[in-house]
Amino acid sequence: MEHIALSVADGIATITLDRPDQLNAFTTTMEHELIEAYDRCDADDSVRAVVITGAGRAFCAGADLSAGADTFAQRLDEPGADDVRRDGGGRVVLRMFECRKPIIAAINGPAVGVGITMTLAADFRLAADDARIGFVFNRRGLVPESCSTWFLPRLVPLQTALDWVYSGRIFDATEAHAAGLVYALHPAADLLDRARALARSLTEHSAPVSVALSRQMMWRTLGAEHPMIAHRIETRGINIRGTGPDAREGISSFLEKRPASFPDRVSSDLPDLFGDDLPTPPFHP
Amino acid sequence: MEHIALSVADGIATITLDRPDQLNAFTTTMEHELIEAYDRCDADDSVRAVVITGAGRAFCAGADLSAGADTFAQRLDEPGADDVRRDGGGRVVLRMFECRKPIIAAINGPAVGVGITMTLAADFRLAADDARIGFVFNRRGLVPESCSTWFLPRLVPLQTALDWVYSGRIFDATEAHAAGLVYALHPAADLLDRARALARSLTEHSAPVSVALSRQMMWRTLGAEHPMIAHRIETRGINIRGTGPDAREGISSFLEKRPASFPDRVSSDLPDLFGDDLPTPPFHP
Amino acid sequence: MEHIALSVADGIATITLDRPDQLNAFTTTMEHELIEAYDRCDADDSVRAVVITGAGRAFCAGADLSAGADTFAQRLDEPGADDVRRDGGGRVVLRMFECRKPIIAAINGPAVGVGITMTLAADFRLAADDARIGFVFNRRGLVPESCSTWFLPRLVPLQTALDWVYSGRIFDATEAHAAGLVYALHPAADLLDRARALARSLTEHSAPVSVALSRQMMWRTLGAEHPMIAHRIETRGINIRGTGPDAREGISSFLEKRPASFPDRVSSDLPDLFGDDLPTPPFHP
Repeated sequence: MEHIALSVADGIATITLDRPDQLNAFTTTMEHELIEAYDRCDADDSVRAVVITGAGRAFCAGADLSAGADTFAQRLDEPGADDVRRDGGGRVVLRMFECRKPIIAAINGPAVGVGITMTLAADFRLAADDARIGFVFNRRGLVPESCSTWFLPRLVPLQTALDWVYSGRIFDATEAHAAGLVYALHPAADLLDRARALARSLTEHSAPVSVALSRQMMWRTLGAEHPMIAHRIETRGINIRGTGPDAREGISSFLEKRPASFPDRVSSDLPDLFGDDLPTPPFHP
Repeated sequence: MEHIALSVADGIATITLDRPDQLNAFTTTMEHELIEAYDRCDADDSVRAVVITGAGRAFCAGADLSAGADTFAQRLDEPGADDVRRDGGGRVVLRMFECRKPIIAAINGPAVGVGITMTLAADFRLAADDARIGFVFNRRGLVPESCSTWFLPRLVPLQTALDWVYSGRIFDATEAHAAGLVYALHPAADLLDRARALARSLTEHSAPVSVALSRQMMWRTLGAEHPMIAHRIETRGINIRGTGPDAREGISSFLEKRPASFPDRVSSDLPDLFGDDLPTPPFHP
Repeated sequence: MEHIALSVADGIATITLDRPDQLNAFTTTMEHELIEAYDRCDADDSVRAVVITGAGRAFCAGADLSAGADTFAQRLDEPGADDVRRDGGGRVVLRMFECRKPIIAAINGPAVGVGITMTLAADFRLAADDARIGFVFNRRGLVPESCSTWFLPRLVPLQTALDWVYSGRIFDATEAHAAGLVYALHPAADLLDRARALARSLTEHSAPVSVALSRQMMWRTLGAEHPMIAHRIETRGINIRGTGPDAREGISSFLEKRPASFPDRVSSDLPDLFGDDLPTPPFHP
């Protein structure tokens, strides 16, 4: 990896945006490497959760503007690109949207433009007390990206989301926390430890396949029109999971008041709950 | 009724989960009886609102696990069941979703698993100060059910919903209240009185048919893609209701500064605002 | 204009509901004039934002009930109306939904019925400390309108929305602010100045075309089923906007640490990001 680093320890993968001299500015290389990193995390059963953070004093200062005013025109000149060259941040967050492991963004410093929008498909955002955030697109003559027009109003009150996006102003972590964008604030020196502690609390007593499925279920039904859509997915989920090895262990260990040891593995035992062949009502009551 | 009790007094129906020695653990019998109870409440014009609570010290401890590790396999062996045996909690909440009367869950004690997810289609959740709550499915090797993957992120901030679901941890009523899952906390001894006081405040000055329609309109458009969907339903609603007996009485009583006495009845006078034949734009401006 | 007034100064349009002797009660004339006013604001490049307020001591007391119990029947007798005479408040908010400029409702006094629902498609609601608000429809034997069944639960917690709508009770601005319906409270004497200050903060550093697009993007994707819908719109937005004059100026001015002077105009340079011909995945990675 060139613009990011990936390491795994104690069941937690850490993705580090790793261009500290450029405040971890986002590049096409970073876009491709982030997608690759989430692929690896999903495939590795030793990874229970993912933490993403920045090297040095910034989280991510936004798109790399070293090409100046030609920045976005150059993107369309990249090999193979054409007029539907996809938004790069959007490709990353759509990959995160499908991820099988919880993702925690540890926002250690400035997170601006794609630097903040790329975190909106993380399950949690923790921030350093002194981090600063901005959805600055309108001040650059651009538009919001990374699917932030979909994610942001699902994370913070709509009036706050519109204020941030219209004005493009920079605001501090305290405002982000008060609005609910950030789940908790911590001193910068403790941030990574606290992110890993959260990762452990999310996963240590849960069946890995259950976490992977519940992540997909929660995110994919977030925009669903009617609860019946959830009911069809959950019906299949309960019928498959409830009769499998993990539930036998989960229920037995609970009744025996002992820790569970779940046998199913995400890489091999993840059922597809979202196929076109889901049971359609009216089905058996 | 075998596993629940249903009573009506002063315009308020009370449904009591009634297996106190089993902490009101959820059974297939309870599933069928709850649906039957909501049917009766909808058909009875003397019922203006519904309160659901638990007998004894618990609200509901979750699925009855007396069959141990075979619990969910046995469900598939029930008479007539097959591999699309529907999620039981989901059947209950989808019935609640269609209910014509406001529903208030009075969570008098522990509400775990389906014990809490079955309350998410209630309009309001009040809880005893010392109630404890848990979306414990991932700790049992299962997945969330009762359409909770659809309801929960519409009730509490997404990061909180994901924390609760991934971890499966038990949390107290104070945390539930702070996150907005619970509308108000009360001492356990006062809970039922406070639930009934809320029920009265919701209904005492409102036309019963207006309450029934607004309940359906709010819930059914909660996942709608575009406000035009609401506009079509509301256009029909205003045209039908605005020219009917209830509006004549509502407007006249308001102008005459006297209490209203609404003539329309839910059992006989509820128009269908949701049919396929709704006016489609462009229609008359 | 007969029932409203429209003025423009310092880049901000002010729409004033202007029937102070009738507490600015809503009429069919007002409905048509509001739509006309938003049309004019959209067409006028000197307008960066819109403030809507009420003349005299009220914001809007609701539908004009001078025809008494015949109010809604008379609407169906208006020239050209038939049984699909559209809800008037709904026509207004759907026009606001499409608006190209941020809209701030300055709720200077009582806002009841359509008086409050017509503000839900504003981007922001500021209120006087002593304003009072009510979704009173159920007390009049009616149903909620102005697409409020769609907007309200996207603005405040669902339990609060249901409480307000079912009961039809009048509540004060403090409760509205605590629930998030109102973005900020101000003394009545300062309200209009504060609304204009907010308008300036939203627009002064942003490209007008970026504000117009981001407004449309945020509102139109608010009910979208999947983030891929946003990705398609944003991909086109970044490719068009990123290579245009505004982005060249926005990026250059940022790198040169000087204020931007954006050349694009809303009236002539607004691209269509929402057409049926959006790129459909799989498209170029």
